[in-house]
Amino acid sequence: MQNISEIEDLIKLISKLPGLGPKSAKRIVLKLINNKNELVKPLANTLAQIYKNVTRCNLCGSLKSNSVGCTNCQKTNEKFTKICVVEDLADQWSIENSNIFQGYFHILGGTISSAGNRKEDLLIDSLVDRVNRDKIEEVILATSATVEGQTTAYYIQDSLKNSKVKVTKLAQGLPIGGEIENLDDGTLFSAFKNRSKLNTSSD
Amino acid sequence: MQNISEIEDLIKLISKLPGLGPKSAKRIVLKLINNKNELVKPLANTLAQIYKNVTRCNLCGSLKSNSVGCTNCQKTNEKFTKICVVEDLADQWSIENSNIFQGYFHILGGTISSAGNRKEDLLIDSLVDRVNRDKIEEVILATSATVEGQTTAYYIQDSLKNSKVKVTKLAQGLPIGGEIENLDDGTLFSAFKNRSKLNTSSD
Repeated sequence: MQNISEIEDLIKLISKLPGLGPKSAKRIVLKLINNKNELVKPLANTLAQIYKNVTRCNLCGSLKSNSVGCTNCQKTNEKFTKICVVEDLADQWSIENSNIFQGYFHILGGTISSAGNRKEDLLIDSLVDRVNRDKIEEVILATSATVEGQTTAYYIQDSLKNSKVKVTKLAQGLPIGGEIENLDDGTLFSAFKNRSKLNTSSD
Repeated sequence: MQNISEIEDLIKLISKLPGLGPKSAKRIVLKLINNKNELVKPLANTLAQIYKNVTRCNLCGSLKSNSVGCTNCQKTNEKFTKICVVEDLADQWSIENSNIFQGYFHILGGTISSAGNRKEDLLIDSLVDRVNRDKIEEVILATSATVEGQTTAYYIQDSLKNSKVKVTKLAQGLPIGGEIENLDDGTLFSAFKNRSKLNTSSD
């Protein structure tokens, strides 16, 4: 490799991205260099704009463009009665992609006790505010099925006890395609505990 | 996905990079957004600098920083007698990583007839100039073992016939680890044709 500091810097930075190592970073850098006008210029501009314009919304935890405002919690043209509470933006994107939920999202920004997050760092107070302000009828807690996620869900449930709102959490049980012999004890326990009745006998 | 145009633009751009699709692009964008100061800002700056400062050297075909000059063909502190001719920068990086060759590199920028490249587009005239100017003793043709690569090698050999320089090309034969039954006819043909003598019998 030649000693062009910009290229070395770029390889180091790209190597830090998830799923990419030094080898794939080099392949990406070669592609970039061979497409300076189509890739390097627009990427540099877009990243600079994101750095300048895109911030986290203080109210719902999602991303907002400073020029447009938050499109997540200020959807003025739509009126939903449900709010789905997730840990981070990746979770919101997954749920949105599945098209399973129509409503508002609320991004906590982590869970209680993971990575030393304090309750105050998570947007729980503003969730209560949103629920009351927007006349929400159901809060769906879609935190992870981990100790931290469930602790956080419990804490949110407690925080909402004075709001007249239905609070639900996602079902736990067998994942679709899951084979019994490969499942962990925790999942089996949940699946047994939450088993559903199939016939209509009285006992 | 929310309608933040900057984020959508970034996902589209990253999806164009080799080895990355929309899903891995989203994962990368999430990582970037969560590390604005450590990743977005330096990446934007580095890309902008590369766009402004890094160009292809007209003489050797490698990349040069406009502020430093070409470190590939103007290595003033080293004096080599060999020059290795490759098709593109990726080839140079591979050979450099193997530590098998100490000397100058010359990057043609493609091969004759591939993607409509004309002989004039490849840096062959400047290779002849370099050979004469730098008193090169050996030119190693490391073009690919394809029809285009070998045609280009032949043309370069012809272009160098008036320079008093040894011209060699890379050996063709079995790749290390290659199993005979899996090799194509061309490789087998080369391996037979270029077979080497092991004993010292006279016939």
